Amino acid sequence: MAPPHDDKAAAEVNDDSTPKRPISNVLFIIAMQTEASPLVNKFQLVEEPESVFPKGVPWVRYYGKYKDLNINIVCPGKDKILGVDSVGTVSASLLTYASIQALQPDLIINAGTAGGFKAKGASIGDVFLASDIAFHDRRIPIPVFDLYGVGSRQAFSTPNLAKELNLKVGKLSTGDSLDMCPQDEAAIVANDATVKDMEGAAIAYVAHLLEVPAIFLKAVTDIIDGDKPTAEEFLQNLAAVTAALDLAAAQVVDFINGKSCSEL
Amino acid sequence: MAPPHDDKAAAEVNDDSTPKRPISNVLFIIAMQTEASPLVNKFQLVEEPESVFPKGVPWVRYYGKYKDLNINIVCPGKDKILGVDSVGTVSASLLTYASIQALQPDLIINAGTAGGFKAKGASIGDVFLASDIAFHDRRIPIPVFDLYGVGSRQAFSTPNLAKELNLKVGKLSTGDSLDMCPQDEAAIVANDATVKDMEGAAIAYVAHLLEVPAIFLKAVTDIIDGDKPTAEEFLQNLAAVTAALDLAAAQVVDFINGKSCSEL
Repeated sequence: MAPPHDDKAAAEVNDDSTPKRPISNVLFIIAMQTEASPLVNKFQLVEEPESVFPKGVPWVRYYGKYKDLNINIVCPGKDKILGVDSVGTVSASLLTYASIQALQPDLIINAGTAGGFKAKGASIGDVFLASDIAFHDRRIPIPVFDLYGVGSRQAFSTPNLAKELNLKVGKLSTGDSLDMCPQDEAAIVANDATVKDMEGAAIAYVAHLLEVPAIFLKAVTDIIDGDKPTAEEFLQNLAAVTAALDLAAAQVVDFINGKSCSEL
Repeated sequence: MAPPHDDKAAAEVNDDSTPKRPISNVLFIIAMQTEASPLVNKFQLVEEPESVFPKGVPWVRYYGKYKDLNINIVCPGKDKILGVDSVGTVSASLLTYASIQALQPDLIINAGTAGGFKAKGASIGDVFLASDIAFHDRRIPIPVFDLYGVGSRQAFSTPNLAKELNLKVGKLSTGDSLDMCPQDEAAIVANDATVKDMEGAAIAYVAHLLEVPAIFLKAVTDIIDGDKPTAEEFLQNLAAVTAALDLAAAQVVDFINGKSCSEL
């Protein structure tokens, strides 16, 4: 528990309670099917025939064994009415909550694409490990509620993983819009973010509530402070950058295998 | 199922599947403790000693019998770190999901305060029944994803309730900020909204996913297109407007008692 006016929630679970036993259950939370499919193939996972989730939700689960690990990949799935991936914080938080309840993971890995700021050192195709995660579109200008809105949290600390895989480390800022209005931009600057996504802070919030270590792998599909329109650049780079993301995710899993959370 | 490019999700459950039996379980979802407490007293509810929710979540449940109804009031509770009410769409969606799973309600009533637009006929203290609910801060400028972001849904239709209680009816727009940036404003105008809150569309989304009828009672604490700062006006009017909201909520419950959903 931090004091009420501390602006940084210690979401880390890197304390004496961190399990020393090897990680057994890894849960990937991936917002888009395009991002998930190569990993499903890489780990030779299968889609579950009977859902562990309630009737009516579009959430999809793939599972299987890879080396010593039980791997689950969950996606929020296609919107029931519109047929597009159920991106954003509401779906991500629900899926994270339900998956933790059903699957009891030892570690959550939120893998996905993100926008990057070249002024903070991001380039197309970079894969970042997020050190901190916060919201940039929850402005509540009342004392203490303002901090709640930002909801800044630290990711589970994995210094050995970052070093071994030579991953760039930066702060992640989350909002429900693909574009960035001036108010979002000011909040992203205040969050000192290098990468921007649409799910991370919601997943961090739920993982923190339920005390599950969570890490965030974000691959840069578009440069926000560049000269190309975000949506166009995003769609153009999605497939190639997803390949880089999946390579990094596979390396992360290989590194995790046989280790405890405290060894990450 | 609407066609993929229809911009209105038919979230109504007002069809042949609507139960004809009298409503038995009513679930109130209320974001702030201040809004909930008078209703808890009015219905003489008690706080549950053993939570139906998982360890770690701050969610609070009050329950009891009122006339022929089992009433549950759930609140997202105080943020574990900052101690303020867990307002906004992420908490509201999680609480809605978990409450539906645990309590199997026949009807959800999301009651809360809202900002109102005087240009659309709202005044301080008005209690609105929302006809439609949509998001105004999820801008995704990619075809079809744009509609997903807006996430427009109809509330469960209750023409008899609206008439009997003489409630104003208007559209509700939801976002995670208490203030309103120009992009939010444009989206709120596009949503044709009379009232603006921070939870409704998330609750509508989850209720629709899990096929539970949901209605939305929103009492106006501040005039957004007026000359007073929102946060100041909100805090100034919160107690008085909450009394109006609670009176309306109690009238709604009295009206519901003994009726089926299709009679509302």
